[in-house]
Amino acid sequence: MYQYEVQLRVRYAETDQMGFVYYGNYATYYEVARVEALRSLGITYKSLEARGILLPVLENRSKFILPARYDDLLTIKVTLDKLPSTRLYFQYQVFNEEEKLINLGETTLVFISRDTEKPIMAPDFLIDILNPFFNDR
Amino acid sequence: MYQYEVQLRVRYAETDQMGFVYYGNYATYYEVARVEALRSLGITYKSLEARGILLPVLENRSKFILPARYDDLLTIKVTLDKLPSTRLYFQYQVFNEEEKLINLGETTLVFISRDTEKPIMAPDFLIDILNPFFNDR
Amino acid sequence: MYQYEVQLRVRYAETDQMGFVYYGNYATYYEVARVEALRSLGITYKSLEARGILLPVLENRSKFILPARYDDLLTIKVTLDKLPSTRLYFQYQVFNEEEKLINLGETTLVFISRDTEKPIMAPDFLIDILNPFFNDR
Amino acid sequence: MYQYEVQLRVRYAETDQMGFVYYGNYATYYEVARVEALRSLGITYKSLEARGILLPVLENRSKFILPARYDDLLTIKVTLDKLPSTRLYFQYQVFNEEEKLINLGETTLVFISRDTEKPIMAPDFLIDILNPFFNDR
Repeated sequence: MYQYEVQLRVRYAETDQMGFVYYGNYATYYEVARVEALRSLGITYKSLEARGILLPVLENRSKFILPARYDDLLTIKVTLDKLPSTRLYFQYQVFNEEEKLINLGETTLVFISRDTEKPIMAPDFLIDILNPFFNDR
Repeated sequence: MYQYEVQLRVRYAETDQMGFVYYGNYATYYEVARVEALRSLGITYKSLEARGILLPVLENRSKFILPARYDDLLTIKVTLDKLPSTRLYFQYQVFNEEEKLINLGETTLVFISRDTEKPIMAPDFLIDILNPFFNDR
Repeated sequence: MYQYEVQLRVRYAETDQMGFVYYGNYATYYEVARVEALRSLGITYKSLEARGILLPVLENRSKFILPARYDDLLTIKVTLDKLPSTRLYFQYQVFNEEEKLINLGETTLVFISRDTEKPIMAPDFLIDILNPFFNDR
Repeated sequence: MYQYEVQLRVRYAETDQMGFVYYGNYATYYEVARVEALRSLGITYKSLEARGILLPVLENRSKFILPARYDDLLTIKVTLDKLPSTRLYFQYQVFNEEEKLINLGETTLVFISRDTEKPIMAPDFLIDILNPFFNDR
């Protein structure tokens, strides 16, 4: 299992007239969280794309427990709890400044070859980096 | 059961560098679909809010089957398959111009009183409007 | 001169906690307006990109006169008041349902070759289509 | 004059299919920049709104010089070059990681009373904080 924590601040643009973060914007928060989790391991999306590997999202789920508000400094705990094969699976827990859990999310992404537009296995270099976190499971 | 179809065109702003609609933007498409479904019944979100009723999203699920691309004219079939109580439940099927199913979604919303910030029952006028579609079930 | 009118409805996602449309979202409204103005002439952005022509924005200006609110049906009057050369210049007037002018915008776009990444002249077919509207000036 | 620098990383959600940051998203970047500039002085938008002061944007201008790309770590230099009266005026210079100027922006905001919806003078506490930076001009 690999876990990482990311902080981000709610932008005015992300609120809606209810005074809360618009529900669709959590998808972007999840993106930031998983990108930074991978970066913490020395892996960037950008370098994956440069190798001709795309990572579109196959599935997304969100539970909205408490609202996030403008200027809140949110903490997103992102969990990678299994080694990727053709798919890469992330879970997210979003906490507000009072450390209350406000949102739960899950995304499934799939490794795609840009050339063939077909699913492919996770690249070896990525498995090599992730392996140590999953050895004793 | 109540079903309604909405069409919308993919905006450039909604694409990402993969050349597809960014996955978070489907939440907005679902919003447009359910708002227009309610409008087709003579109900507007705006008038709900004017009565002090908020409708935040509790849960959202999406499956991404095929990509949507810039300028695609999408058809969203929205289904209300049970009468609301404190919750209002919508399902979405998104089709592209070739009539291929590209996305499946579900959202659960909850009726909240703006004053008490507590869940409340769906207002009577809304039940009255919806009732005829659920009579024989 | 070529003028065209587009209508669009304000989405919940586009509002912010002030209860108005977030100022950055007018850029998307302008995009919709100019895309539909071109489509009304038989020209699509998509087909331009398919020919290897990109049209990035060079300059954007907006004046915010009155707020747009959730669910407003806005009318955008878009004006093309000179024939494009390497640049394509649009003006926008946004009106609310009471026909009040709420926003003024201008964008300058530039024709770029995807291959060379350099500015190029507007393609001939586009000039041919636009010419009749500018003959007597 | 008061100047402040903010860094932010381009999100995938903010790119478009041209492979660049969508032009409308700079408005959000400017928002982040001015909010952080004010925060660096001990002033938060949030506290202004809590005092019943809204700060809608009256005018926005952007020049797009070079594209910003996914995952770029942008530096935004924000300048407050005059003391606010009823209006608050910001300038922005956006630089990429190679320290190239990629974007220039200006926004004019106006202090509005939430109660009267009329323009008001900048609150005294804000003037008191800003005054030292403008004394010798």
